[in-house]
Amino acid sequence: MLSLQTLRDAHDRIRPYIHRTPCLTNQTIDGMAGATLVFKCENFQKIGAFKARGGMNAALQLTEAERQYGVTTHSSGNHAQALAYAARQLRIPAYIVMPRTAPQVKKEAVRGYGAEVIDCEPNLAAREAGVIEVMQRTQATLIHPFDDDRVIAGQSTAAIELMEDNPTGRPFDVIMAPVGGGGLLSGTALAVHYLSSQTRVIAGEPEGAADAVLSFKSGRVEQAPYINTIADGLMTSLSERTLAIIRQHVSDIRLVNDTEIRAAQRLVWERMKILIEPSCAVPLAVVLKYKADFSGQTIGIILTGGNVDLGKYFAD
Amino acid sequence: MLSLQTLRDAHDRIRPYIHRTPCLTNQTIDGMAGATLVFKCENFQKIGAFKARGGMNAALQLTEAERQYGVTTHSSGNHAQALAYAARQLRIPAYIVMPRTAPQVKKEAVRGYGAEVIDCEPNLAAREAGVIEVMQRTQATLIHPFDDDRVIAGQSTAAIELMEDNPTGRPFDVIMAPVGGGGLLSGTALAVHYLSSQTRVIAGEPEGAADAVLSFKSGRVEQAPYINTIADGLMTSLSERTLAIIRQHVSDIRLVNDTEIRAAQRLVWERMKILIEPSCAVPLAVVLKYKADFSGQTIGIILTGGNVDLGKYFAD
Repeated sequence: MLSLQTLRDAHDRIRPYIHRTPCLTNQTIDGMAGATLVFKCENFQKIGAFKARGGMNAALQLTEAERQYGVTTHSSGNHAQALAYAARQLRIPAYIVMPRTAPQVKKEAVRGYGAEVIDCEPNLAAREAGVIEVMQRTQATLIHPFDDDRVIAGQSTAAIELMEDNPTGRPFDVIMAPVGGGGLLSGTALAVHYLSSQTRVIAGEPEGAADAVLSFKSGRVEQAPYINTIADGLMTSLSERTLAIIRQHVSDIRLVNDTEIRAAQRLVWERMKILIEPSCAVPLAVVLKYKADFSGQTIGIILTGGNVDLGKYFAD
Repeated sequence: MLSLQTLRDAHDRIRPYIHRTPCLTNQTIDGMAGATLVFKCENFQKIGAFKARGGMNAALQLTEAERQYGVTTHSSGNHAQALAYAARQLRIPAYIVMPRTAPQVKKEAVRGYGAEVIDCEPNLAAREAGVIEVMQRTQATLIHPFDDDRVIAGQSTAAIELMEDNPTGRPFDVIMAPVGGGGLLSGTALAVHYLSSQTRVIAGEPEGAADAVLSFKSGRVEQAPYINTIADGLMTSLSERTLAIIRQHVSDIRLVNDTEIRAAQRLVWERMKILIEPSCAVPLAVVLKYKADFSGQTIGIILTGGNVDLGKYFAD
């Protein structure tokens, strides 16, 4: 079990490499929600997402021998950039296995940090095989996107800052995060457990990737009945490790559909003038959908990232 | 001539009604520009643009008798919302003449502040006739978007805050703003003149609305050779009043084309994760176009607003 000291150590370790992102509020959205919302803006984080925290915390704990051979992972999303960023900070090699269908712009961002991109077929077996091949070839260390205590401890630091920087003068009734593999959610739940035990942690999950809500009930790692959502960062299932923490320290997981997610994303863009990913809009969509359950409460929401493809908007 | 005390008084007067918006920096964009850039984020201002400052300062100086009859203006853009917002704060009537072709979403935003929207044909004569009709009918006071000392003094407060909150520890070599009618630019130039006389003020203007650059040279209010630009907030010509201040206190006006404006806008969205209007991207486009002239300098840029139509992005 990750101790408070482990989370504090993670925070001290990564602090020189990450932004202390701002907490923003918005009167119009508060009015619509009938609640006081505080948004922790990890879309302003290094690489545009909270994942810089976990990747950095893991990479910083490699031994000298491990550093020499570098790190590897498979990811089509923010963890790929996070690990490439962390490796760049430490001047060690990084090998990122990415599905050949991943957007070119994401591959270029990873290469921009000096990492080697290895293309693979777009399925889990090919991705895992790709990583094993890399590990055999390079002796690089695998850093999993969420099934790793170092990563979970790193992600917990967003909630720590949110609680420390809470501008409302009242403790949070609820802190919310979206759930994919559960790295952020389990880190958040641990931080809240240690630092604000009266605060409930509630997760948001897309209907089109509804595995965590099932696992939360059954106590086993379940698969989603189907995968089809615009929240492309939340398609992964939990691991035994993240499920155990979530079962112990999370109060509830609520589902929202893509229309609700898209409306919440648009609301944040229009009213707060900040860019957030669809995955990032899931908790706000939950608050707006289940208004009666959140009425009058003080709610912290971790805005997880802002890496969106703007080609559609800027197309002529 | 507006005195420093007048600008200070404006700041004190409007402070309860406006946000002190943050100053943001971005390492990637600094690297691309070869300079240190500080962005004053008026896209986070009330109504999503700096115009809340000028509108508020003017409305707050109405006499009791004038307040009773309310305010009016013609605008298809941010000044319409600014004046509606100011009137709402003071609980006085507002009558906004808007071209019937203005986006429905903008009209609804104005109505959302409780103002009455009066449709007119989309040309200057019809807009001015509309305002005269309103004034005759209601006795409301006209508050011009820029040809008004109270408005100019209000707009100057963005630059005052930028200089006060400058995070670089060095005085600015340059402070930049876009120029349309010149209200923001003349307010900015006055504030810099009084508070940081070693700092140059440089404006950016679209090639497709190149009136200010001509007026700046000739000393007379000139019209643009043609009007065709995505920077829809900058299509207006200067007034005698704004031109006089600009000729005295602005160092230079540089032109950029729509491709350069669009690229700068996209860069801010992608790298800073904040929404800005095309008009707002003009000064950054100038810095990136004329890199050699800004190399190594510390530059403050007023990001003027973030009111963009997101229908294109969120269309299915």
